[in-house]
Amino acid sequence: MKTVGEVGERALIAMFTAAAKTGPGDVVIGSGDDAAVFAPTGPVVVSTDTAVAGRHFRFDWSSPRQIGARAVVQSAADIAAMGGVPTGVVVSIGCPPTTPVDRVLEVNAGIVAQSHAYRARVLGGDLVSSAEVVLTVTSLGVLDGTDAVALSGARAGDVLAVSGPLGGPAGGLAALAAVEHGAQPDLLDAYPSLVEDYRLPQPDLAQGRVAALAGAHAMTDVSDGLVEELITLSAASQVRLDVDSARVPQARGLAGLGRALGVDPLRWALGGGEEHELLATFAPGSVPAGWTVIGRVSAGEAGAWIDDAPVGEIRGWQSFTDT
Amino acid sequence: MKTVGEVGERALIAMFTAAAKTGPGDVVIGSGDDAAVFAPTGPVVVSTDTAVAGRHFRFDWSSPRQIGARAVVQSAADIAAMGGVPTGVVVSIGCPPTTPVDRVLEVNAGIVAQSHAYRARVLGGDLVSSAEVVLTVTSLGVLDGTDAVALSGARAGDVLAVSGPLGGPAGGLAALAAVEHGAQPDLLDAYPSLVEDYRLPQPDLAQGRVAALAGAHAMTDVSDGLVEELITLSAASQVRLDVDSARVPQARGLAGLGRALGVDPLRWALGGGEEHELLATFAPGSVPAGWTVIGRVSAGEAGAWIDDAPVGEIRGWQSFTDT
Repeated sequence: MKTVGEVGERALIAMFTAAAKTGPGDVVIGSGDDAAVFAPTGPVVVSTDTAVAGRHFRFDWSSPRQIGARAVVQSAADIAAMGGVPTGVVVSIGCPPTTPVDRVLEVNAGIVAQSHAYRARVLGGDLVSSAEVVLTVTSLGVLDGTDAVALSGARAGDVLAVSGPLGGPAGGLAALAAVEHGAQPDLLDAYPSLVEDYRLPQPDLAQGRVAALAGAHAMTDVSDGLVEELITLSAASQVRLDVDSARVPQARGLAGLGRALGVDPLRWALGGGEEHELLATFAPGSVPAGWTVIGRVSAGEAGAWIDDAPVGEIRGWQSFTDT
Repeated sequence: MKTVGEVGERALIAMFTAAAKTGPGDVVIGSGDDAAVFAPTGPVVVSTDTAVAGRHFRFDWSSPRQIGARAVVQSAADIAAMGGVPTGVVVSIGCPPTTPVDRVLEVNAGIVAQSHAYRARVLGGDLVSSAEVVLTVTSLGVLDGTDAVALSGARAGDVLAVSGPLGGPAGGLAALAAVEHGAQPDLLDAYPSLVEDYRLPQPDLAQGRVAALAGAHAMTDVSDGLVEELITLSAASQVRLDVDSARVPQARGLAGLGRALGVDPLRWALGGGEEHELLATFAPGSVPAGWTVIGRVSAGEAGAWIDDAPVGEIRGWQSFTDT
């Protein structure tokens, strides 16, 4: 099998360009020129996100295609968290010259497939030699007739809601780590949906626009774990957030996996990360269908509380997001 | 001195956000939220570019501030090469946790300063742990009433022109490498402008829009060396390009450095890279002031020729761009 170094940057970029040629969107000039040109229909939303092999993903735990797709999910979730709709991505791939070409092509295939699943176009990219595989995805999107939903808009009296169940990726990661450290491999077969949640989280990012249309006051995506996002949101909006942990929806199978590993599954649901479900505040009565109310927003000193305890006490849970 | 690992991602991103708060542009929501939002005045141009320590730059050859600024020049040059004007950048910085905080803050300061020099805003970014320092800058820009100038538009009968002198960065790099390999250190003092060209090339990127307004048919920036760009341009436009090497403007001091090192300076001017001057084709009589005509475009088999020799014979020169 040939390596990236043997095939060379020029030939590989031509393959990437060919893979990116098709796709939806209002693109004037696409991949293959110095830069891409597109004609947005309104204000543009942009965010960038980097994932590093060994730290944010592992090639022995996920397929190259899943790794590429997940990088797009992570970046596009930031567009959704503003109430935007992803329309395009640009991608930088760094890898050692010894990397098999097929691995890089599969990563790129995952990037292209997930972008197209969002009806977004791969607009361009860069390929460089680096010591480890580094993926940077910059997502672009548009606000389709709504205002951007910032972190700073939460108001006293709002309710706090999430767009889907939490803890799946952290649970799946814990299962993979447990097997690596000697647990029975059939643990992975017993909780396949959690392992898949880790490998390629599938938040419904269309809920970002749904929330914006419903008048969400503040929004973010759960990339660093719920506890960390509560801290960020409370600081940005200068409000107190109270979460009732019993109301936090947990990914299917999380309780069983918790029993199997002797871990309180709530730790994964509150402290996990990289799930990219959306967390938003709404006026009471404005919560969209499918969202779950988990707490409330009130005036007073900025901070986040879970079951009447300040989250500072449980912040160590963020370490679960480390791989 | 504290390290990045000691200070932590959260605190550092707060410092980056504070540094990015000011600046020009039509920004609705800037750095510090999930994503930035801006309201472009027309079609949007986007390009991404990654630089890796040891390969694209060295901390013992350039200051951290120059390294950050150069990453912006390289990315913004792709916007200019479409005829666009840079308006914003998003940045991803990867570095080892042992990196001194001051080094990362200086890299960021260079990114911010160079962006502001272009009247572009730092819109956001990401900071991750990686084995080596990796900088990815994604530039955004607008086309201000002109069409995008693609690679594919060169026409038989056009003249080929460059926006400034070439070979400076390759010469400066050669001087730094020669000193490292035992040449007299005063070589660097003798050719300071070439060393500066390598450390922070200063192409006049406003010439991209000037060229677009003058009706340029095709354009790119000289990032991979003139020879490589000629190959790319001829293939994209399916035309023959002929360059008269005597007409290629060379950076000041290049001849002297060539004599000092026993190298034909033309090798740097034709084979060097990362200069980011613009290369464009125009109808005869439409070349803007300050540009230098170096050759012509004709029908016939796609390919590039220098002094009546096909460039394939001299393509090995691209290796000069390696650090």
